[in-house]
Amino acid sequence: MPQLPKYLTGNSAAIDEFLDKFDVFLLDCDGVLWSGDHLFEGIVETLELLRSKGKRIVFVTNNSTKSRPDYQKKLTAMGIPSNVEEIFASAYSSAIYISRILKLPAPKNKVFVIGESGIESELRTEGVPFIGGTDPALRRDITPEDFAGLADGSLLDLDVGVVLAGLDFHINYLKLSMGFQYIRRGAKFLATNLDSTLPVNHTFFPGAGSITIPLINMSGQNPVALGKPSQAMMDAIEGKFQLDRARTCMVGDRLNTDIQFGVEGKLGGTLAVLTGVSKKEHWEAEDAVAVPAFYVDKLSDLRDATK
Amino acid sequence: MPQLPKYLTGNSAAIDEFLDKFDVFLLDCDGVLWSGDHLFEGIVETLELLRSKGKRIVFVTNNSTKSRPDYQKKLTAMGIPSNVEEIFASAYSSAIYISRILKLPAPKNKVFVIGESGIESELRTEGVPFIGGTDPALRRDITPEDFAGLADGSLLDLDVGVVLAGLDFHINYLKLSMGFQYIRRGAKFLATNLDSTLPVNHTFFPGAGSITIPLINMSGQNPVALGKPSQAMMDAIEGKFQLDRARTCMVGDRLNTDIQFGVEGKLGGTLAVLTGVSKKEHWEAEDAVAVPAFYVDKLSDLRDATK
Repeated sequence: MPQLPKYLTGNSAAIDEFLDKFDVFLLDCDGVLWSGDHLFEGIVETLELLRSKGKRIVFVTNNSTKSRPDYQKKLTAMGIPSNVEEIFASAYSSAIYISRILKLPAPKNKVFVIGESGIESELRTEGVPFIGGTDPALRRDITPEDFAGLADGSLLDLDVGVVLAGLDFHINYLKLSMGFQYIRRGAKFLATNLDSTLPVNHTFFPGAGSITIPLINMSGQNPVALGKPSQAMMDAIEGKFQLDRARTCMVGDRLNTDIQFGVEGKLGGTLAVLTGVSKKEHWEAEDAVAVPAFYVDKLSDLRDATK
Repeated sequence: MPQLPKYLTGNSAAIDEFLDKFDVFLLDCDGVLWSGDHLFEGIVETLELLRSKGKRIVFVTNNSTKSRPDYQKKLTAMGIPSNVEEIFASAYSSAIYISRILKLPAPKNKVFVIGESGIESELRTEGVPFIGGTDPALRRDITPEDFAGLADGSLLDLDVGVVLAGLDFHINYLKLSMGFQYIRRGAKFLATNLDSTLPVNHTFFPGAGSITIPLINMSGQNPVALGKPSQAMMDAIEGKFQLDRARTCMVGDRLNTDIQFGVEGKLGGTLAVLTGVSKKEHWEAEDAVAVPAFYVDKLSDLRDATK
């Protein structure tokens, strides 16, 4: 059993020691900085403190509905200063995985998107052709003609080589049917992330993983997931920011995404906050999926640093 | 490893012997009698042959979109004589499970339905109150007000004690969100059946199991499933038809629904047909989920009976 995490809240000496260990902080957002539309108290000051100590901050989010510029708008609206280059979201990591790692040869490199506009923007930025997504033509009931045309292939775009599924507030039977047909016909199956739920208003709604799971269930295939805890995302972050993993700390509220992401990525440390999904009991359990190295009640507890 | 099935096609003596063993035939429909809208050749004559020998026929289907009267219309349209009492569909078995086995005390006995009108008709027949289903008010995008109202409970009906999920061609984010909130608040979780796919036009579309699986993924709970291979359905069939399991044969095309249903139900026999999903290789595989006792290329091969 791994060692239990060190509790930093209220312990200034321990906080000083903790901060000294790291140059880069990868910050999960929802559940760490805010919950839904509610910014936690003291967050702006805490981020200022980190920056004032010369720490690099990267906002790492599985949110796939937003592009990086969209996400920056959200940070700004929340009152959090940031720049686009500090943001790493799963729509972006999916787009760069497709354009720079998969590199399918044209013309069979089109992506069928199940998801929102953030995915589309990032694919567009990377020059990846796509269909589906927010196309209003797919926001409707399935018809007998669809059943026939999907079965005989006449309604399918033969250039589709990838199905990319993420959080889609407009998911429907037609899109699931199309995605499945493309996968059956050999398209590579990717998911922005596999979070089962999306925290909103202090409760949970279907997450990207719950939009993707019908395709997994039908096809018997598991997608390559590009969000936390997938190490494909960590590799992309490392490549982009040229960070030293030993001097990097992942901060998050979910053991099975954030903390696992940092542990499997062999980062120098992981910090859990108790303002989101996971609770102390979760990492104290025998079958804990991952155990953080440190924890605080809330991120702003780091303001007790003395140096 | 169980014995491999006996092949009956073209073997009149074996067919005679097979038919003598059983009084009741439970017939799966799609993949056995027809595929999509295409009735297989010789089916009507084969059913006539069985009836002429005094065999009882029960049409057992996981199709949850149709009530029994709807399903009888489909049989009639296909040219297959039947009566409503011979039909056992998963919407019906779900309704009788709720009304006769669960028997939740009013007022907290309302069912939130994810599914089509067949489920609603059968619930109505059994006098079970329900919401959701084909309600046009739920066939729309989720709004910020929905997120808020589902989170604070103001949009939820506190009398809902059951969530019943089945095949829903109008599945959307709002319905999945509502179903999940009811399950989180303690509603019993049922599914008409868990077929991952629906065969249509010689290919596959999302089945009831793929509509239900986001709720399983979000809640971490498995529903009580009321279709094949769930033995809840077998018990209901036995109760209704007072059949002798030893003299009953399940006929179907899917090992993991039909044949498993018959084997686990300890029926006298199971007959696989090769006109649907499962192939000979499937039961010859080491890890076959179930092995039939008999098989034919197609159901109409039974017409080679000599007696």
